[in-house]
Amino acid sequence: MNQDLSQASAASQPSTWSQRFESALHPAIAQFNASIGFDIQLIEYDLTGSQAHAQMLAHTGIIAAAEGEQLVNGLEQIRQEYRQGLFVPGVEAEDVHFAVERRLTEIVGDVGKKLHTARSRNDQVGTDTRLYLRDQIQHIRQRVRSFQAILLTLAEQHVETLIPGYTHLQRAQPLSLAHHLLAYFEMSQRDWERLGEIYQRVNISPLGSGALAGTTFPIDRHYTAKLLHFGGVYANSLDGVSDRDFAIEFLCAASLIMVHLSRLAEEVILWASEEFGFVTLKDSCSTGSSIMPQKKNPDVPELVRGKTGRVFGHLQGLLVLMKGLPLAYNKDLQEDKEALFDAVVTVQGCLEAMTILLQEGLEFRVARLQAAVNEDFSNATDVADYLAGKGVPFREAYNLVGKVVKTSLAQGKLLKDLTLDEWKTLHPAFESDIYAAIAPAQVVSARNSYGGTGFTQVRQALQNAKATLG
Amino acid sequence: MNQDLSQASAASQPSTWSQRFESALHPAIAQFNASIGFDIQLIEYDLTGSQAHAQMLAHTGIIAAAEGEQLVNGLEQIRQEYRQGLFVPGVEAEDVHFAVERRLTEIVGDVGKKLHTARSRNDQVGTDTRLYLRDQIQHIRQRVRSFQAILLTLAEQHVETLIPGYTHLQRAQPLSLAHHLLAYFEMSQRDWERLGEIYQRVNISPLGSGALAGTTFPIDRHYTAKLLHFGGVYANSLDGVSDRDFAIEFLCAASLIMVHLSRLAEEVILWASEEFGFVTLKDSCSTGSSIMPQKKNPDVPELVRGKTGRVFGHLQGLLVLMKGLPLAYNKDLQEDKEALFDAVVTVQGCLEAMTILLQEGLEFRVARLQAAVNEDFSNATDVADYLAGKGVPFREAYNLVGKVVKTSLAQGKLLKDLTLDEWKTLHPAFESDIYAAIAPAQVVSARNSYGGTGFTQVRQALQNAKATLG
Amino acid sequence: MNQDLSQASAASQPSTWSQRFESALHPAIAQFNASIGFDIQLIEYDLTGSQAHAQMLAHTGIIAAAEGEQLVNGLEQIRQEYRQGLFVPGVEAEDVHFAVERRLTEIVGDVGKKLHTARSRNDQVGTDTRLYLRDQIQHIRQRVRSFQAILLTLAEQHVETLIPGYTHLQRAQPLSLAHHLLAYFEMSQRDWERLGEIYQRVNISPLGSGALAGTTFPIDRHYTAKLLHFGGVYANSLDGVSDRDFAIEFLCAASLIMVHLSRLAEEVILWASEEFGFVTLKDSCSTGSSIMPQKKNPDVPELVRGKTGRVFGHLQGLLVLMKGLPLAYNKDLQEDKEALFDAVVTVQGCLEAMTILLQEGLEFRVARLQAAVNEDFSNATDVADYLAGKGVPFREAYNLVGKVVKTSLAQGKLLKDLTLDEWKTLHPAFESDIYAAIAPAQVVSARNSYGGTGFTQVRQALQNAKATLG
Amino acid sequence: MNQDLSQASAASQPSTWSQRFESALHPAIAQFNASIGFDIQLIEYDLTGSQAHAQMLAHTGIIAAAEGEQLVNGLEQIRQEYRQGLFVPGVEAEDVHFAVERRLTEIVGDVGKKLHTARSRNDQVGTDTRLYLRDQIQHIRQRVRSFQAILLTLAEQHVETLIPGYTHLQRAQPLSLAHHLLAYFEMSQRDWERLGEIYQRVNISPLGSGALAGTTFPIDRHYTAKLLHFGGVYANSLDGVSDRDFAIEFLCAASLIMVHLSRLAEEVILWASEEFGFVTLKDSCSTGSSIMPQKKNPDVPELVRGKTGRVFGHLQGLLVLMKGLPLAYNKDLQEDKEALFDAVVTVQGCLEAMTILLQEGLEFRVARLQAAVNEDFSNATDVADYLAGKGVPFREAYNLVGKVVKTSLAQGKLLKDLTLDEWKTLHPAFESDIYAAIAPAQVVSARNSYGGTGFTQVRQALQNAKATLG
Repeated sequence: MNQDLSQASAASQPSTWSQRFESALHPAIAQFNASIGFDIQLIEYDLTGSQAHAQMLAHTGIIAAAEGEQLVNGLEQIRQEYRQGLFVPGVEAEDVHFAVERRLTEIVGDVGKKLHTARSRNDQVGTDTRLYLRDQIQHIRQRVRSFQAILLTLAEQHVETLIPGYTHLQRAQPLSLAHHLLAYFEMSQRDWERLGEIYQRVNISPLGSGALAGTTFPIDRHYTAKLLHFGGVYANSLDGVSDRDFAIEFLCAASLIMVHLSRLAEEVILWASEEFGFVTLKDSCSTGSSIMPQKKNPDVPELVRGKTGRVFGHLQGLLVLMKGLPLAYNKDLQEDKEALFDAVVTVQGCLEAMTILLQEGLEFRVARLQAAVNEDFSNATDVADYLAGKGVPFREAYNLVGKVVKTSLAQGKLLKDLTLDEWKTLHPAFESDIYAAIAPAQVVSARNSYGGTGFTQVRQALQNAKATLG
Repeated sequence: MNQDLSQASAASQPSTWSQRFESALHPAIAQFNASIGFDIQLIEYDLTGSQAHAQMLAHTGIIAAAEGEQLVNGLEQIRQEYRQGLFVPGVEAEDVHFAVERRLTEIVGDVGKKLHTARSRNDQVGTDTRLYLRDQIQHIRQRVRSFQAILLTLAEQHVETLIPGYTHLQRAQPLSLAHHLLAYFEMSQRDWERLGEIYQRVNISPLGSGALAGTTFPIDRHYTAKLLHFGGVYANSLDGVSDRDFAIEFLCAASLIMVHLSRLAEEVILWASEEFGFVTLKDSCSTGSSIMPQKKNPDVPELVRGKTGRVFGHLQGLLVLMKGLPLAYNKDLQEDKEALFDAVVTVQGCLEAMTILLQEGLEFRVARLQAAVNEDFSNATDVADYLAGKGVPFREAYNLVGKVVKTSLAQGKLLKDLTLDEWKTLHPAFESDIYAAIAPAQVVSARNSYGGTGFTQVRQALQNAKATLG
Repeated sequence: MNQDLSQASAASQPSTWSQRFESALHPAIAQFNASIGFDIQLIEYDLTGSQAHAQMLAHTGIIAAAEGEQLVNGLEQIRQEYRQGLFVPGVEAEDVHFAVERRLTEIVGDVGKKLHTARSRNDQVGTDTRLYLRDQIQHIRQRVRSFQAILLTLAEQHVETLIPGYTHLQRAQPLSLAHHLLAYFEMSQRDWERLGEIYQRVNISPLGSGALAGTTFPIDRHYTAKLLHFGGVYANSLDGVSDRDFAIEFLCAASLIMVHLSRLAEEVILWASEEFGFVTLKDSCSTGSSIMPQKKNPDVPELVRGKTGRVFGHLQGLLVLMKGLPLAYNKDLQEDKEALFDAVVTVQGCLEAMTILLQEGLEFRVARLQAAVNEDFSNATDVADYLAGKGVPFREAYNLVGKVVKTSLAQGKLLKDLTLDEWKTLHPAFESDIYAAIAPAQVVSARNSYGGTGFTQVRQALQNAKATLG
Repeated sequence: MNQDLSQASAASQPSTWSQRFESALHPAIAQFNASIGFDIQLIEYDLTGSQAHAQMLAHTGIIAAAEGEQLVNGLEQIRQEYRQGLFVPGVEAEDVHFAVERRLTEIVGDVGKKLHTARSRNDQVGTDTRLYLRDQIQHIRQRVRSFQAILLTLAEQHVETLIPGYTHLQRAQPLSLAHHLLAYFEMSQRDWERLGEIYQRVNISPLGSGALAGTTFPIDRHYTAKLLHFGGVYANSLDGVSDRDFAIEFLCAASLIMVHLSRLAEEVILWASEEFGFVTLKDSCSTGSSIMPQKKNPDVPELVRGKTGRVFGHLQGLLVLMKGLPLAYNKDLQEDKEALFDAVVTVQGCLEAMTILLQEGLEFRVARLQAAVNEDFSNATDVADYLAGKGVPFREAYNLVGKVVKTSLAQGKLLKDLTLDEWKTLHPAFESDIYAAIAPAQVVSARNSYGGTGFTQVRQALQNAKATLG
């Protein structure tokens, strides 16, 4: 069957689509319109998609089997040329699709013009973008896994390392450092799962939607979908060419990854400060000052934090892009790609950098952390618990502790500094075991509710995390 | 067991938490800090959450069974008082949690102070917000279903109504109006599914995470989760009190709903214009002008389109809120609620308004649509198909059509206006059946690829849509 | 002259604009469309604008002088009723303009219907919004001035209080605390100036632009502009009714204020932490924990930081609103108000709260600050300067210092801890005056370049700041 | 004077800043940190800034006059090398500042190491960015002027061309096309003015702020400012290195330009549709379809509309970047540049493309426009005016017209189609001059209020616009 190759022929000769067109594009407008500068990044996906399309055309008899083979081989040759740097289309190519098709026709001759049969650039670019994003999501998920793995490794090393826990950036209750690190493991786990769900909606084939309405050719959309390992096909051709939900969903997931990384970045920056001093930055992940010899700057977490807004901005950009666009394809949609590409690169780079930072860029100063948790009043309620355990009515206990804290603050003392006599003066029920009860490790250990920082809970959480990573 | 009720007692007497505090809040600061003005909207969820907490305290023996019952009943009484407008806390209550607890203690006496045992406002407000959002997601999903139902109803009425299909807002190929409407059905279907996935991540209980570290009380988090029909519990207490992913994910889904609605809104506005004239607005959904008697304005779709940015803004607002926040709870998080509430109200309102608009606010002008699809060159490629079908080499056919279009445009003619003689002059293969071949209905019908606008496809799509709605 | 009062009469009887309208609005749609819920906030501006319009109608003879007086008095009566809580329009009023006009007609009878002569709600609401925003900008500028005043007061107290200066949140060079505070003074100064410039573009009258095209009545737009103290009138009626640049510009300025406040907020949160300990929070501006007696939380700066995203979100919301709107008025524009109102309230609230915080909510811990600047290597380059001053070739000096820092770090020493013998061993040029040269106060003092932290510069900057505040 | 060249020497040998640093950066981290990939765009500004700095060092005697000359000449040589493509620094250069300095030292020898005396990369990059943006703002302002010029040219041609005026995209009142175009002239005028104001705040020199605190060298900041044609210097060194208000303000102004262009873009897309048919797109600014020979797509306005979100996104990105950053310089700030660069390129490209589009890419279809304004009821109120002018009480007139419109609509007639008999049946006051009174040109002409669409007003507005452009 060979009824209508107009699509192919027209597409492969863009200068001739202009049956109604008598003059050429203004050069500045040609430059303004061209997307080849960035969509060249899609070339391998474009080739793969075109190969599947060619195979389908042959499979359904729309073109001859031999023609199909020629097309597939020609496209493969372009792939090799591209990888070797031999195929470098310029702005005159307008976009990657035309660039490929023109080169194909040079290679295989007129049969190259049949490739575009029964498709349009509208469904083609949608296919390319989904193939691209599908891959990137898998890469990002792997990076999330690597990030989780180093969090887990560190957590395993630091179950009994204590660190002050904060609310409002005020010391609240001491924590197992492992517990703190596992909070990020949990956030990343959601990132991983969310990307998995989005993958399902990315992995739908629009190929065969045509320009907007489907095609008169007896194509087999499920066949190309299967060749390209898509999980399904778009059920409506208008939706197929105009849907960008998948890109926006991805950018939202990417933004959440950045939220999580920026929070950890902020903490590392705080921890590396003179004042906190909870970590030492290593040379491999920090830089100095051209002026001040004493400086060691946490560039990595700062850049990660700084790149957060960039991804949020891309999310906003794409939402704005889609707002109020009538069906079906509009040229505006060309603007989806750079935002997507940059978000992908940014998120991958930030995940990698933070993973390296945790792996070899910082060291927890355990002794300093130990000292820190010994120097505050975060054990105050545990004193009340102690008394209550000895049968003192709770209100009495609580009020007593309130007073002790106040007096101690005024005297520059901590609770552990009180002598047994002082304790006994406060209440006769105090005995020498009070010191054990308010020791930070005991305070942590006692918070043994499910998901709490108690060591038993943390060890169980580590088991679960290990099982998650498999 | 009755060891430590400090939490309860302190919480119910905010003025007394200030053992270290000697003077009161500055009145302007109290006003600035207070959230009661908006978090009162959470009151029923707060009551429900507190009832479950009280039951758990009794179940685990942390309080006596009778005490648990008193608390549950007291909370129920507050619910009734609130519904009857008898409980109206003012700004002095600071937030809904304190307001409820204070009233509870008035009702049940000192046992009310035990309610806050083993929890903190940090996990409490997280629980309330999730209970609220969980409900709202279900409401919104129902509204999505109603919106889909009216789309389906209209589509069923308009399978054979043709409408011009556009790319770049230029006439491209004629469509079945049903096919056009079903594109929105598909978008909404993704909205519905996406909300379902997000629901799973919203429906996790943070209750029992305490302030940040868990609690020393032998609570049973799975018990409260079960009572509250949560699907799981947060595995890490720090994450439990500081995670707002679920709110951001929801706002992204809400933004996508607005993207879809804004696209349809834009189309309705176009369709209702004098120039398009594809729909008539009915009085029940449009307004006039105070000056111009001829005006009938599409306020509903305009407002929907206008409200789009509002939801995007809330999404950005929450992302910004979370950027770079160190663990665990920070007061900043109080700012999550108003954005969420407003997005919920906006999305629900817009879905409802657009549903009503489709249901009874507009009527497709079928005759005008029919005329429209007869008045353009969107059947041009079908002429080439015709010739190719008669054995004419495609390129020759394609070039011929190019010329015809050009000449016809110059003469102000359409393809259907050409006489058979004229056709035959162009190419002897033309016969009188050319008129049937390029009739819009035939052009539509021929696009019978899967998901295309061909009537067979559309009828199948309608079946599938019906099955989806169940 | 009395030619055409259709506008007035129609407007005051919305149910009758529907000459083409046979049925009423669907109740849910009426609710969806109504703006009275929020635009009631504009009522006083609406009354003022209407009074000026009425005076102009009389002045130009479009209505009789006596009629003009009746209208002005009637509108004044509504103002009093509103202030006394006697005029409370409900949702049936649709918007504030209709609500006022209906009440006016009740008060003054049929002449009330003449008020809307020669104007439209499109130019009317534009006028109201500008009158509102003009006022709010002045209020915000005053709050900026108050904020600057307290910064200046604190700076004057702390010229010689030293505080570590940071880059990358690493100790860099010691600063005069006054210098640090004056950095915020400078940011606020830009805020103040920027608002002043925006004021000029807000303060332009659209009144008389009509629905979009001007009016056939012989109005005098400059007359109303003068009565309303506008600085000019819109030169193009289409632009007059559809321009919202002024609102977006304001939201950008508001966002920048929030950027500045959020930076200071972040610093105060850090300073108030156990680890920094640079400030003590006072009871009047902080809250405690219901659980932990030792907590004193910096709620104010946290909330301010948290509210930042809210204002950014409104800015984005309005940009999205305007994107791609065809001329002239579209109902979408109704959505400009809530974003604007909320941003105004938020920025005013945050400025006030931060001013109170600085005024009476925190105290700098001067002794601790003094200790802090004595405990680091931020004086390292000053050692090199010392040697160079003694004629030592700079490279030699610099390398020596590099070594000293390294050795000292390893020994847990600071530069000031080296004995004169140790210094002399490093280089014979060292003498006992080295200690004075690297004392923090000297290090600060020496940075005497224009705009630097040297005390002379800071004192000059204080003089300038005082002059600015007048 | 030659006391301290540590800054210079350290900066030119980044590998040696690491007196505390024993190992090199991880390669992936080096890549992650490097900004040379994009900040190379600043190179000419960096060179210019460095030349001024070198001149100042010599002027103040910090270096010898001959040294200053050597530095200036060496920097000039780098400029030539760069322009000839001979100087192409790679990622190992880290950033443009290091790249330049290293090359300089190769050229001029050790004296090159003195260039960085008394400055830091923090104030250096701030200076470069401001020099860059200052230039770009001037370029953009010129493009705004070109855009205004073509608007003015078209407006002059189309004073008496009528076009339907819309509110709610419903025909409202006919307009002079010139009036419509001049609305965009006004928007652009605000853009031009706003950029002028922002320029003042961009054009302030941070040079000499040092790393954060100023410098101990006796520099002359006003001297470099003067050499670089800055309008002033930052008054506070902390503010000087950490302020990015100017970039955000610019992005807001850029966003507003995009708002305006997107509105015009939307209108052109509508006008070019089959349905409106108000303009013909020319070949030089539109493209066809690879499938459909009849297509001529408005790619330019679609792309412009599509690029709008991109600029909004950059604005949001930078706001997010700055939120909550403590003073002074943080590495996050490196992220300001790509957003800025892309916004500049985008806005310039869009202004240019739209200017070309108006210049030679479209033609107004005057006949069609003329027909359009004759085919609606936008003259309805003018009928009422007519009767009122004949002494008929207005309410009676208004009601009569209401009825006429309704009846005519039902009969498919327009007002002008009524016979004089029919008019007279409605009211005896009608005479044959009614036809003139409701002719579109008269309807337009009558709206002669200041800023209205009346021809007299429009001609005056054209005069004013011409005067503005000078």
